[in-house]
Amino acid sequence: MQNFIYDVSTKVYFGPNQIKGNLSSEIKKFGSKVLIVYGGGTIKKLGLYNEIICELKNSSVEVFELSKIKPNPRSTSVLEGAKICKRENIDVVLAVGGGSVIDAAKFIAAGRYYDGDPWDFMTGEAEIQRALPIFSILTLAATGSEMDACGVITNEKTKEKLGKASPFLRPKVSFLDPTLTYSVSKYQTACGSADILSHIIETYFYSYDAMYMLDKFMEGLMKTVIKHAPIALREPKNYQARANLMWTSSWAINGLIKQDKTHEWSCHPIEHELSAFYDITHGLGLAILTPRWMRYVLDEENVDRFYGFGVNVFDIDKNLSKMEVAKKAIYKLEEFLYKDLNLTDTLTKLNIDDRYFEIMAGRITKNGALKGFKDLDKDDIVKIYQACL
Amino acid sequence: MQNFIYDVSTKVYFGPNQIKGNLSSEIKKFGSKVLIVYGGGTIKKLGLYNEIICELKNSSVEVFELSKIKPNPRSTSVLEGAKICKRENIDVVLAVGGGSVIDAAKFIAAGRYYDGDPWDFMTGEAEIQRALPIFSILTLAATGSEMDACGVITNEKTKEKLGKASPFLRPKVSFLDPTLTYSVSKYQTACGSADILSHIIETYFYSYDAMYMLDKFMEGLMKTVIKHAPIALREPKNYQARANLMWTSSWAINGLIKQDKTHEWSCHPIEHELSAFYDITHGLGLAILTPRWMRYVLDEENVDRFYGFGVNVFDIDKNLSKMEVAKKAIYKLEEFLYKDLNLTDTLTKLNIDDRYFEIMAGRITKNGALKGFKDLDKDDIVKIYQACL
Repeated sequence: MQNFIYDVSTKVYFGPNQIKGNLSSEIKKFGSKVLIVYGGGTIKKLGLYNEIICELKNSSVEVFELSKIKPNPRSTSVLEGAKICKRENIDVVLAVGGGSVIDAAKFIAAGRYYDGDPWDFMTGEAEIQRALPIFSILTLAATGSEMDACGVITNEKTKEKLGKASPFLRPKVSFLDPTLTYSVSKYQTACGSADILSHIIETYFYSYDAMYMLDKFMEGLMKTVIKHAPIALREPKNYQARANLMWTSSWAINGLIKQDKTHEWSCHPIEHELSAFYDITHGLGLAILTPRWMRYVLDEENVDRFYGFGVNVFDIDKNLSKMEVAKKAIYKLEEFLYKDLNLTDTLTKLNIDDRYFEIMAGRITKNGALKGFKDLDKDDIVKIYQACL
Repeated sequence: MQNFIYDVSTKVYFGPNQIKGNLSSEIKKFGSKVLIVYGGGTIKKLGLYNEIICELKNSSVEVFELSKIKPNPRSTSVLEGAKICKRENIDVVLAVGGGSVIDAAKFIAAGRYYDGDPWDFMTGEAEIQRALPIFSILTLAATGSEMDACGVITNEKTKEKLGKASPFLRPKVSFLDPTLTYSVSKYQTACGSADILSHIIETYFYSYDAMYMLDKFMEGLMKTVIKHAPIALREPKNYQARANLMWTSSWAINGLIKQDKTHEWSCHPIEHELSAFYDITHGLGLAILTPRWMRYVLDEENVDRFYGFGVNVFDIDKNLSKMEVAKKAIYKLEEFLYKDLNLTDTLTKLNIDDRYFEIMAGRITKNGALKGFKDLDKDDIVKIYQACL
């Protein structure tokens, strides 16, 4: 077990009707000029936009806006937001939306203090030295960006989708109101749940030397998604289901379970190339990839981790052989993703063929094998993509 | 499920050898004059005292000291520490020790900004408006004070032991080094583990409408104590065991599992009277009381909670009747506390008889019944004390 630093300071207001009074008083600790970052019309349909504007104007907070942030948020939007922050001398960046909007807000906040294009943060050409305080009002349980210190941005020109972490990117305050996710479609709920589950699986598998206590926590988080995502699909306004998914999305990735380890994730980098090339929903890409990755890497040496996963998450009979449990666990995961969540189970059904597999795998491994639960070279990754057809 | 605010900002350095460089750089964010608060000679025997002094002096931090803090820390020590803070214009209070030392440091830090005796905070005569930044270096896994916002102080004159919570009391930075607990005696390890377990049990039982996700987390925390405390007794230098106990002590009480609910604990207030009257170790008092409390409150209406406890924490056969599982669970808990941890199982063996039971129960219920998982009036509490003889 290695040393770690736990430093997760995001303050969370959880539950409905928490915005009034609290949003403006929290913002005023940092200033009085806010840039609201959001996507399309959803927050207007929800009445949320009006609620926020009303709350802020009543407290004499000056409001600026950047809308039309897309899923897989674009570097061009980040650049535009950073320019507004500089020009208007913004004090706080407030993201209202899902993970894409929050991710964009994070690099906008950091871009405020950088002369060049914030895309340079993603490529490593520039370091994040500072950022404006970031607030979020979450409308989709998925990425966990509301409480973590990283984000992912897509560059359309170069077809690159890159992630970056920095302590300056962690939101200061996040509002998590499960009722705001009542109107999230079945498809988006399913993709979001697959994303949450993937964050836990990635961490669970590379942290095979984790503390027992954190293993139990991760298994509990996985059980929570598996139990509550299908309920949210059947009953979109089930508060318990929406609340469990939302709070689990935050704890899946905020830092507690990973014990400060460098990310050594496998499916995420493999998926990022897929959504960079084909702009598919991130959670769907993960749902297609994860069981194939598991089947590809499973062997006699690492079967113990799969055994724990099967017994403690899927309640598979612990008296079966380890390999039997492992294989059953992968099958159970597929059943959850493709039957319970009704997600598409192959790339072929998304009209994706093998033409870019070599290029995508090459980009992932351009600096050497992909380190993780089991290190993967270019050939391995191509084979995993092929298994998804 | 009710709304809550999650706001746990303590930064934790976990693992050995984290003090050097980090302690002074974190302190210097707040100033350069430190009051070190500690108990007896243990930290000198450990070499920890010298390590800290060396680290601070090398960074030109000016050091003041208050030692001889006792278990069940006294209001007189708190008053003395607050006077030093005022006189020397201290910037940071650094607790080095277990929960008693950290609790004392908390009210010393708050007392810095209060003209009267900090004991007034405990009785409600004064409100905590501000506090110096509090740091801790933990040497005993038990109370969770290293990451929570409350503390308990004993007034020897009035024989009162009172707790108080305030966001100003939450440590800014805590150092959790499991190797510092290698030399903790079997008895103190057992009492500390009983205390940790009690914090989780108290919360688990009053939060019967908690989120599933938090239920799973609490069950995981309880399983962690039950698995690792006996290992720590057998092998005092088992890093995994000590680390699991230490990190569990923090998460048992830092705020995540309680979902911001007002404390409605049962065994703690009943135990506080015991240790106020007889100065017994808090964790031991809890170990004697908890199974008796359980047996006293268990009924057909609340049996579901005991059933979940039995099946998910002690792996009792889920096909037994609910009442059977509940009773077996209480028996298993006793077995853990009195056999595995080898703790004393009756008050009689501690030479405590029934002479003050009425007075103690009267003090707990002087403002009405003790609210909790099941509300208890004076008679109920006397009966629970009697069952401990």
